[in-house]
Amino acid sequence: MIIKLKNSTTEAEKQHLIEWAEKQGVSVCTVTGTMDTLLGFIGDTAHIDMEQLEAMHIVDAVKRIQAPYKRASRNFHPEDTVITVGDAVIGGKEPVIIAGPCSVESEEQICGVAMDVKKSGAKILRGGAFKPRTSPYSFQGLRADGIKLLLEAKKESGLPIVTEIMDISQLPLFDDVDIIQVGARNMQNFELLKELGKTEKPILLKRGLSSTLEELLMSAEYIMSGGNEQVILCERGIRTFETATRNTLDLSCIPVLQSLSHLPVIVDPSHATGKADLVAPMSRAAIAAGADGLIIEVHNNPACALCDGQQSLTPAAFDELKKSIDKVAAALC
Amino acid sequence: MIIKLKNSTTEAEKQHLIEWAEKQGVSVCTVTGTMDTLLGFIGDTAHIDMEQLEAMHIVDAVKRIQAPYKRASRNFHPEDTVITVGDAVIGGKEPVIIAGPCSVESEEQICGVAMDVKKSGAKILRGGAFKPRTSPYSFQGLRADGIKLLLEAKKESGLPIVTEIMDISQLPLFDDVDIIQVGARNMQNFELLKELGKTEKPILLKRGLSSTLEELLMSAEYIMSGGNEQVILCERGIRTFETATRNTLDLSCIPVLQSLSHLPVIVDPSHATGKADLVAPMSRAAIAAGADGLIIEVHNNPACALCDGQQSLTPAAFDELKKSIDKVAAALC
Amino acid sequence: MIIKLKNSTTEAEKQHLIEWAEKQGVSVCTVTGTMDTLLGFIGDTAHIDMEQLEAMHIVDAVKRIQAPYKRASRNFHPEDTVITVGDAVIGGKEPVIIAGPCSVESEEQICGVAMDVKKSGAKILRGGAFKPRTSPYSFQGLRADGIKLLLEAKKESGLPIVTEIMDISQLPLFDDVDIIQVGARNMQNFELLKELGKTEKPILLKRGLSSTLEELLMSAEYIMSGGNEQVILCERGIRTFETATRNTLDLSCIPVLQSLSHLPVIVDPSHATGKADLVAPMSRAAIAAGADGLIIEVHNNPACALCDGQQSLTPAAFDELKKSIDKVAAALC
Amino acid sequence: MIIKLKNSTTEAEKQHLIEWAEKQGVSVCTVTGTMDTLLGFIGDTAHIDMEQLEAMHIVDAVKRIQAPYKRASRNFHPEDTVITVGDAVIGGKEPVIIAGPCSVESEEQICGVAMDVKKSGAKILRGGAFKPRTSPYSFQGLRADGIKLLLEAKKESGLPIVTEIMDISQLPLFDDVDIIQVGARNMQNFELLKELGKTEKPILLKRGLSSTLEELLMSAEYIMSGGNEQVILCERGIRTFETATRNTLDLSCIPVLQSLSHLPVIVDPSHATGKADLVAPMSRAAIAAGADGLIIEVHNNPACALCDGQQSLTPAAFDELKKSIDKVAAALC
Repeated sequence: MIIKLKNSTTEAEKQHLIEWAEKQGVSVCTVTGTMDTLLGFIGDTAHIDMEQLEAMHIVDAVKRIQAPYKRASRNFHPEDTVITVGDAVIGGKEPVIIAGPCSVESEEQICGVAMDVKKSGAKILRGGAFKPRTSPYSFQGLRADGIKLLLEAKKESGLPIVTEIMDISQLPLFDDVDIIQVGARNMQNFELLKELGKTEKPILLKRGLSSTLEELLMSAEYIMSGGNEQVILCERGIRTFETATRNTLDLSCIPVLQSLSHLPVIVDPSHATGKADLVAPMSRAAIAAGADGLIIEVHNNPACALCDGQQSLTPAAFDELKKSIDKVAAALC
Repeated sequence: MIIKLKNSTTEAEKQHLIEWAEKQGVSVCTVTGTMDTLLGFIGDTAHIDMEQLEAMHIVDAVKRIQAPYKRASRNFHPEDTVITVGDAVIGGKEPVIIAGPCSVESEEQICGVAMDVKKSGAKILRGGAFKPRTSPYSFQGLRADGIKLLLEAKKESGLPIVTEIMDISQLPLFDDVDIIQVGARNMQNFELLKELGKTEKPILLKRGLSSTLEELLMSAEYIMSGGNEQVILCERGIRTFETATRNTLDLSCIPVLQSLSHLPVIVDPSHATGKADLVAPMSRAAIAAGADGLIIEVHNNPACALCDGQQSLTPAAFDELKKSIDKVAAALC
Repeated sequence: MIIKLKNSTTEAEKQHLIEWAEKQGVSVCTVTGTMDTLLGFIGDTAHIDMEQLEAMHIVDAVKRIQAPYKRASRNFHPEDTVITVGDAVIGGKEPVIIAGPCSVESEEQICGVAMDVKKSGAKILRGGAFKPRTSPYSFQGLRADGIKLLLEAKKESGLPIVTEIMDISQLPLFDDVDIIQVGARNMQNFELLKELGKTEKPILLKRGLSSTLEELLMSAEYIMSGGNEQVILCERGIRTFETATRNTLDLSCIPVLQSLSHLPVIVDPSHATGKADLVAPMSRAAIAAGADGLIIEVHNNPACALCDGQQSLTPAAFDELKKSIDKVAAALC
Repeated sequence: MIIKLKNSTTEAEKQHLIEWAEKQGVSVCTVTGTMDTLLGFIGDTAHIDMEQLEAMHIVDAVKRIQAPYKRASRNFHPEDTVITVGDAVIGGKEPVIIAGPCSVESEEQICGVAMDVKKSGAKILRGGAFKPRTSPYSFQGLRADGIKLLLEAKKESGLPIVTEIMDISQLPLFDDVDIIQVGARNMQNFELLKELGKTEKPILLKRGLSSTLEELLMSAEYIMSGGNEQVILCERGIRTFETATRNTLDLSCIPVLQSLSHLPVIVDPSHATGKADLVAPMSRAAIAAGADGLIIEVHNNPACALCDGQQSLTPAAFDELKKSIDKVAAALC
């Protein structure tokens, strides 16, 4: 961490700041130039509050050189984190495919899709019970009943399940859920993250619509600092000025996150693009960029889906896509 | 709502869609051109799920012409909403000033600041008890104790108080709080919004960092559809590519929101800019743009503030600012 | 094109507008509902000025349903455009690889890199003579001398060349250049685009940092409306709030552009990411997403490159990348 | 400038880099910590190419602490730049108002508007002769004839004129133009900027749609480094995700630019918002934020304007606005 002092700083003020820093456990080096005085804070600066520093009247600018996260950082944990759920391995050699409908609608629907996607090679079933919808007038999900139906589908298909939590109070319903998803809109719901840090379940953490990668890793750090180190990062498109797609899928984040962190990185091409036609090319691109997996919407009757039907694949289209994904994955070996 | 059909649509398919729409309570007009067939849905389309329509295989494009919100809309409620809390009137003729520290730190601090800002003309006291911080290692607020100290300051100063809620479970602590704030990161925490819709307290709803004005109004609609119509909208800067300021304060949103909605609109220049030097010019600009009020950070010792000190004004600077705000407000009459 | 009239519109005003539209060659259908009156303009609306319409005092809103471009649109030109330059085919079955240094620095450098990338399978040589640099104090390129060196390298290697033009006055120097590049900062330099529309050379048109896909296609339309239909579209990253990469590479634009337009789409992973480490995964991802080609920076000594060295590959790294690209391309067949 | 070295750096490599830096005229201080080695470059670092540094294989990260511009910087030129054109003073005590139509359409129109806005208190006449339009099918301006009409209006009204240049080749036509405008799309047309740096006319430089304030100042530096120090900076809205306004007017940039630079800062509320209704509140807000002036579109018949009519004020509305602006300006004294 580099601190540039204002030219008006007195020697006494500078010494006072140096002592403050040393109390926080870092050592300080001073660089005095013709125009500027710089202080270098050396050691573990993750706990130093940058904004507090910036507020001091003698400080002109602060630049962080180390990342503000530790448990999520590859520097402190060089080996890849591998998460195992049932037969599925996330962060291992092969990309893992998660598939299922946007919303759970009926036993017939969820069990049917589960069997279909399993046959095509999906390893985990997804399905929404609690649905975050922009409008209070849109379908909000089957909620507790949706979880029950998912558990039915789990029993029938043998696939582990992932579904989204929207509030701490829903946690008791997630006892038999295998992976708990935190949606993009809750990525900085810090109270929820803290609570999930106390559980022992893998957390699928979606990147917020306007969250930087550093903020995503800080949210992972919230969960991990509570003791739960099983976090799966998920890119699902960011908000930009472009309106041709619902969001802009940021595939460069895959190699960037993999270099900054040891956590697995998966991609949601369905929500990112919002259009079924784009799911296949973006799935192949994500795998080619090195993603550890994909989470894809599949519905047995997309035109009647109660939400997000326009971005869902039919089971047949998913089956075809899975084959082409396998070919791209093989080409990378 | 206008629906453009694909050229391949059969007459039977078109009739099927028209019947579907009529069942939802809208009337349908057909426009058949040389190249395109368009359907116009006329009537109350707020309840129609655009995404479900877009998913239908005969539909090429859907354009909404009416706003998707109703209770928040000026069309359905032409008069300004005026909210009264103690002596403070929000949405009335004069802009209301809310002031106080980012975080509540001690009784001495919060009571001191309360008396100071009251003397300068602030009508409501702000102060954070639950603090959403990007890092789990940063100060998280005094929490329940912070609320108690705020209530002390309320008693001592006579000012009504506003403070942020971060989770439904905290609601019982807010019994004597006058206005409940929903922070930018929780603007789309829909479970929380629904719960607040059941209370009878005014809600100060901050715009999310990357939320459109339509999304902000939809979040207000969540609260209002639960029965609580006392919502105060708050612009606090949006996320853009620019890094010279913490966020980009979008002052055009004031006249835009005031034309779309009857709800009062206030501005938070402290969080938007992140720099004390910018608070005064941006406060004056917000008032000149027609804002119904301001929420400003004031700390009796900004350099030692436990969070966001760099954007806080001293009581003296606030006093001076209040005078210049009054002059700008007077110039508008 | 759909026009929503204000409720205050009189019958005479409506008739006046309908006549105005019919004079512009479109037919008009009227939809009268309980709350709104809508007009549908049917036929070729590309020449109608939306903003002029929106300015009319009886008009509440205008929604375009057809694209505002024609020559660039796949609707009017269903077959893919294929551009042939020497042995290189752009928009054909196989992706074409363009490679070379950011800046031309010396005969030895450009000829050496040309022979290297040719051996690895590049079909076109790139190299900057005129360099758009943010700072007036940065190296501005060898300019006319750079073009001469590129022509040397073309003669020696047999590779066709592409290089950037920055101003109309430079055009005479481009007589023997095979493809003229328009940089991102000049994508809306309309005077330059018009002039290039009069040439008979293929134009490589880079997307501006904050240009929508529609604006990119409108800039292609500028060139094409002048008579030059050989336009190659190039995605090179857009500007977003994320700072972990120089720009955000928008790979979804590949399938979107290919569906909207018949023009070939290539990707520049070097400028988009700004980091050599990210070039390989993003190149593979672009190919997997269906790109018609790549333009990649290769320098024989990246650490000493006069500009953008940090994003350049060595010839050896490029050779390895080309092999892995070929594998991904083969996996798509 | 701070350089963080990779842990693998040898002593010899470090010495080599230090010598390289010293040759460029800066002195170097070394900070060796337990985990990192940092170099501080002290002195005038504006000429050092950050990207070249970042490309070096021993360099992990580079952070600039000084601004990369000099002539535009307030550090090197503490007094405000004041530009005088005819009776107009830009950057002086009173805000200057520039007004006129988007496009010059006829002698009657431009002379009529000139007399109207002069009467209301505008000090400079604006009007577009060369028009940058997204579509090649839209009206492109009267071009050379437009300049002639503007000069007529200048003669008749006595107001100095400002109009936009789109290409170097148009420069001879600007001999009698008082201020040359560079549009947002040409803010990084570096060849044009260099040429304007050789003229002796004030340049009104508009911020690009996605340009940072640093980039805007670097473009000013291009002009100033050629010898022309009369640059007026103009904020006209930036591109964000929000679609309720055409662009997002970034008023915080006014105090930020005024603290970084000595150049005057004016605001264009017409293009930023795209809607006449928003021009008045945003004009007042800009003045309250401290702007040195405004450039406002006024048309004697907005509904028939050949471009951008929807954002133009009538002369009567402008007259009323001018009075309210004066009141806000007076309130700031």
